[in-house]
Amino acid sequence: MTMFTPFDHQMMTRAIKLAQKGRFTTAPNPNVGCVITQGDTILGEGFHYRAGEPHAEVHALRMAGERSRGATAYVTLEPCSHYGRTPPCAEGLIKAGVSKVICAMQDPNPQVSGRGIQMLREAGIEVEVGLLEADAKALNPAFIKRMQTGVPFVQLKMASSIDGQTALSNGKSQWITSQQARQNVQHYRAQAGAILSTSQTVIDDNASLTVRWNELPASIKDVYPETELRQPVRVILDRQNKLHSQLALYASPSPVIRVSDENADVTVEVNAHGQLDMRQTLATLAKTHNINHIWVEAGATLAKSLLQEQLVDELVLYLAPKIMGSDGRGLFGALGLTDMQQVMDLEIKECRLVGSDIRIVAIPKPTDLKRKD
Amino acid sequence: MTMFTPFDHQMMTRAIKLAQKGRFTTAPNPNVGCVITQGDTILGEGFHYRAGEPHAEVHALRMAGERSRGATAYVTLEPCSHYGRTPPCAEGLIKAGVSKVICAMQDPNPQVSGRGIQMLREAGIEVEVGLLEADAKALNPAFIKRMQTGVPFVQLKMASSIDGQTALSNGKSQWITSQQARQNVQHYRAQAGAILSTSQTVIDDNASLTVRWNELPASIKDVYPETELRQPVRVILDRQNKLHSQLALYASPSPVIRVSDENADVTVEVNAHGQLDMRQTLATLAKTHNINHIWVEAGATLAKSLLQEQLVDELVLYLAPKIMGSDGRGLFGALGLTDMQQVMDLEIKECRLVGSDIRIVAIPKPTDLKRKD
Repeated sequence: MTMFTPFDHQMMTRAIKLAQKGRFTTAPNPNVGCVITQGDTILGEGFHYRAGEPHAEVHALRMAGERSRGATAYVTLEPCSHYGRTPPCAEGLIKAGVSKVICAMQDPNPQVSGRGIQMLREAGIEVEVGLLEADAKALNPAFIKRMQTGVPFVQLKMASSIDGQTALSNGKSQWITSQQARQNVQHYRAQAGAILSTSQTVIDDNASLTVRWNELPASIKDVYPETELRQPVRVILDRQNKLHSQLALYASPSPVIRVSDENADVTVEVNAHGQLDMRQTLATLAKTHNINHIWVEAGATLAKSLLQEQLVDELVLYLAPKIMGSDGRGLFGALGLTDMQQVMDLEIKECRLVGSDIRIVAIPKPTDLKRKD
Repeated sequence: MTMFTPFDHQMMTRAIKLAQKGRFTTAPNPNVGCVITQGDTILGEGFHYRAGEPHAEVHALRMAGERSRGATAYVTLEPCSHYGRTPPCAEGLIKAGVSKVICAMQDPNPQVSGRGIQMLREAGIEVEVGLLEADAKALNPAFIKRMQTGVPFVQLKMASSIDGQTALSNGKSQWITSQQARQNVQHYRAQAGAILSTSQTVIDDNASLTVRWNELPASIKDVYPETELRQPVRVILDRQNKLHSQLALYASPSPVIRVSDENADVTVEVNAHGQLDMRQTLATLAKTHNINHIWVEAGATLAKSLLQEQLVDELVLYLAPKIMGSDGRGLFGALGLTDMQQVMDLEIKECRLVGSDIRIVAIPKPTDLKRKD
């Protein structure tokens, strides 16, 4: 059993904090940080900033320069072993002559996991794995999920009054939530690889579904300048072919991926309920568009489908301190349940105030719920 | 302007903590604590435990005995000046020969406020008022409200799924919330002077609406032995005369107060909506039954009426981590709203996990909302 020293913990914590600096920009790549030390001196450090640009290890090695020889490298993720847009980092560490590499976790891709470590060991480098692994995993839940399952990590955003209404019966809903909650949504959008919605929602709200830098919280603006803004792609379910070029959606240069059952950017089957197959949609987005992380903003119908198909990893629910009455539009539509055993169970991960609203983050529990509608 | 010393703060904090020990038992009297000191020595302390038993000052004076002469008394509430079931405490303090009295707040009853202080000052005792006043007020929000307005403090308890449903469309609802949330309800019931419900709810659930000591949280059981249990009275709206002696309600010895428009324990008018007048009901309970604090457990109809009449001081909402679908029974029933301006606004006072559920405490904001139904 490997024993890590307090200094090891300190350096890996530093590497994890560095990795976090890439959280708005690395998609579809993972967030990775690296620190290189000799004795108790930090010689170099770096993090991955943007896909196509150097990996964390490269930045750290460049900074350390000749002093890397005999050094220890702390990396939050197993160094890569393949030639992609950049040469493999394992090779870089070997060439630089480091004598020890400590990784927080192995590569989550089962097809390459362990290869970088093997390459290092074969070059005579001492390698240890597992320091602060849980924290390192928390850097990249979406990347890890896609690598391990071929399906993106799905966050479903909903907003309602405290009594579960998303709009009045006549459809009026602006604004249920506070400005702070809407800013908070921008923060989530900015971390996603794609925003998923439906043509109905896009047309109803004439929504652009972009990250509006001006609306990000000040604490984010400070670390994420407007010139660096990465826009998630917009994925729109449009079976009825309603999207048209006059929509605000098309006023932003970031790509729109139209999903339908024919002649679309992503073409999928229609299921027995006459709806676009969401599991196929998500798997295709993962495979052909490298989407790790999908932020869903849509209405009750899509929310219900995703939940019933057990495709939601996190529900992010904003509850406004308002009572709208049960005759408005409900959060998830009718479910036709007849027994409490059929109810969909969640686990509350977080519950806090955002401005005057409550934000609940909940994880759906696996269920045998069958569609009743 | 009076300057209080750190020692003064310390002693009043102690008196406030003592007062809290009476929170399950003093109703309809307020929670009061008292500490008597000489120099930096505590000579006596006490709190009011139960209506009809000695007030806080009496306990503290008895403990201090002869040493009260020339002492300072810290009291969380202005000493009483009237002969009730016990002689006035102001008189007790005068007879004991204390030289200084520090009160956290004046008596909230506008008809006697200041009289106790006046009595003390006329006897040559130095009196200071206002030390930790906000904390002292927080001891007795319900007592203060009744004294100042003639209407009890109303806490409305509701429980629903995260999407605002209190039951499935067929009425099934057991159990939406967790055992911890239900224990938490017992804790609230135990602090109330009365539990308000309707004959419909009582009959549907065959509810006894008592405090079940066994279900109180362990931390409460430790400080509140079963032998001391005070049961709130049960107030049941029963316009259709449905209550009958076979109900579990009548298996408990604590009083049942039946409210109707004729031949009832509390007889009130019926309003234009054909419902018992709730403002009149509450005022009568305050006046003739000395009820400070009402804990409401009922269905959507009563909840809606109380909210629309602006009679709710606090909404205590338990949200279970479940999705039930919008075709169940909604929290507050139909409100018929057509504009977001008509929505009822709340202020979130607290939001936290209780077991696996979320407990939200919210304060309704004053509104011009008119009934639409």
